[in-house]
Amino acid sequence: MSGKLYVGLDVGGTAIKAGVCSEDGKLLHTFEGPTENEKGSDRVMANMAQYARTVVEQMSASWDDVEGVGLGVPGFLDIQNGVLLTSPNLVLRNAPLKSYLSEQLGKPVLINNDANVAALGEAWGGAGRGVSDCVMYTLGTGVGGGIIIGGRIVVGFNAMAGELGHIAIVPDLEAIQCGCGKKGCLETVSSATGIIRMAKDAVARGDLAPLAGLDTITAKDVFDAAKAGNETAARIVQRAAHYLGKSMALVSVVVNPQRFIIGGGVAKAGEYLFEQIREAYFKHALEAASKGVEIVPAELGNNAGVVGAAGLILRS
Amino acid sequence: MSGKLYVGLDVGGTAIKAGVCSEDGKLLHTFEGPTENEKGSDRVMANMAQYARTVVEQMSASWDDVEGVGLGVPGFLDIQNGVLLTSPNLVLRNAPLKSYLSEQLGKPVLINNDANVAALGEAWGGAGRGVSDCVMYTLGTGVGGGIIIGGRIVVGFNAMAGELGHIAIVPDLEAIQCGCGKKGCLETVSSATGIIRMAKDAVARGDLAPLAGLDTITAKDVFDAAKAGNETAARIVQRAAHYLGKSMALVSVVVNPQRFIIGGGVAKAGEYLFEQIREAYFKHALEAASKGVEIVPAELGNNAGVVGAAGLILRS
Repeated sequence: MSGKLYVGLDVGGTAIKAGVCSEDGKLLHTFEGPTENEKGSDRVMANMAQYARTVVEQMSASWDDVEGVGLGVPGFLDIQNGVLLTSPNLVLRNAPLKSYLSEQLGKPVLINNDANVAALGEAWGGAGRGVSDCVMYTLGTGVGGGIIIGGRIVVGFNAMAGELGHIAIVPDLEAIQCGCGKKGCLETVSSATGIIRMAKDAVARGDLAPLAGLDTITAKDVFDAAKAGNETAARIVQRAAHYLGKSMALVSVVVNPQRFIIGGGVAKAGEYLFEQIREAYFKHALEAASKGVEIVPAELGNNAGVVGAAGLILRS
Repeated sequence: MSGKLYVGLDVGGTAIKAGVCSEDGKLLHTFEGPTENEKGSDRVMANMAQYARTVVEQMSASWDDVEGVGLGVPGFLDIQNGVLLTSPNLVLRNAPLKSYLSEQLGKPVLINNDANVAALGEAWGGAGRGVSDCVMYTLGTGVGGGIIIGGRIVVGFNAMAGELGHIAIVPDLEAIQCGCGKKGCLETVSSATGIIRMAKDAVARGDLAPLAGLDTITAKDVFDAAKAGNETAARIVQRAAHYLGKSMALVSVVVNPQRFIIGGGVAKAGEYLFEQIREAYFKHALEAASKGVEIVPAELGNNAGVVGAAGLILRS
């Protein structure tokens, strides 16, 4: 092995994934180990350091070739100082990740939140490769996001940049309560949760027979029914795509990205969904802003986090 | 004089304003000369070069102390190459401003559009001083804007970042046509033009007696009537402030700026307007994003353009 290496850690509640990238954002090797949350804060931090070294050793590379280590972490962070303040999924509190790991590993260390890091991963080494301004939407349980301008993550004053799920987009008369306390957030209609809720409502009013017998309804069930020609399911998908595309039209006159990248479980619905998103976007966007803009699926799947974490060192 | 100097040119259809700033964004001297559009493209460009030298000579500074020259230009630009493609107010077409001026002046030259440059001016040397992420709204005939992240202008793929007047914010049932061809744009309610239109509608239905006798209605007339206690005028102002604040709530989950700066003629209405904007913003914004965020008036008035133009060299 030769050339500069960038190590990324994607820290989750049950597992920590480590990855090594080349300078151009190519993922060369990964390693995954248990977080061991139950063994306490010190053990979790020691694991981070260990897995960073392990992933490099496993590919028979020299630690000297490592330029730096980046971490994607779920929770509230003091990014500047590299401290994890609190996290819903981790035992750590006020954990000085940056100072601890840079001392343990002898390399520059940077942290950022997991959604931002995933967006950077796609921008650097995935669907946004070669594009300097992209916006990523992650359609899962909620709607997450990340804004990449000039190849770098936009964090924002309260680290809330890219919280695209909380764009208020549904008109008041149709808006329902979001988990955030506000009404009409994009997340209430374009997340898996939103799609499932609309489907359950339809089943309850006797309007979505193919899904009526299911114990649990998934977003995939709704897409499958829509693709099979069920009109109610098709309207639900159309509604999710409509507000998503409309929110992108707004984002286009704020930061005007070249490319929108859509990831997360819901994006697996494929071209059937993407065509409808594009239609809604180009219908609502100012033509001068949307000309040439692309809406594409994410490419890295679960690896977006490690790739983006590795990219922090280069792109900060 | 000693220390580095930054020269800015704010190019308008009738006049070109030149200014000199210190490294910390303080405006040291200005000079204004005629654009002379009627004398053709070559003359306008020669005037730019001349006025840049004149403003420095007038303050008895040495041209050697000038670090670079920036231009704020109205129109469609190829910012990368420094070419003005077309402009509604200038005779220039496909004018290579950057290469011409850098040759004439022997200094680095950068160009950007006038709205972005005004936002940078406020961010660097005005109401955003010391703040790295700010968003500026300019409430005039239309609603313009500019996004400053990490102290730098966000231009966008089609140079349409910060076109905040075209955020679709008015619900469909109340939306009217915008000049851009879309419906419900912020500009239709929160610009001077929007406020005047609402006032004219009210006068026409006999609902705004104090303004009924006027030959022309200005936004100031509406604010004056509102401040004097006229309920209809007050509702018009409230509507303008409501949608403005609501659009800022959206911007807060896209780029999450620390400070919103509001300039333009309408902002002269002062605290009466600002209080209502803040109320609308904090009501609609996600608390985690809006905590500590400030909404303040612009400070530089007509000088924002020259200051921001001068800042291009430092902040690009």
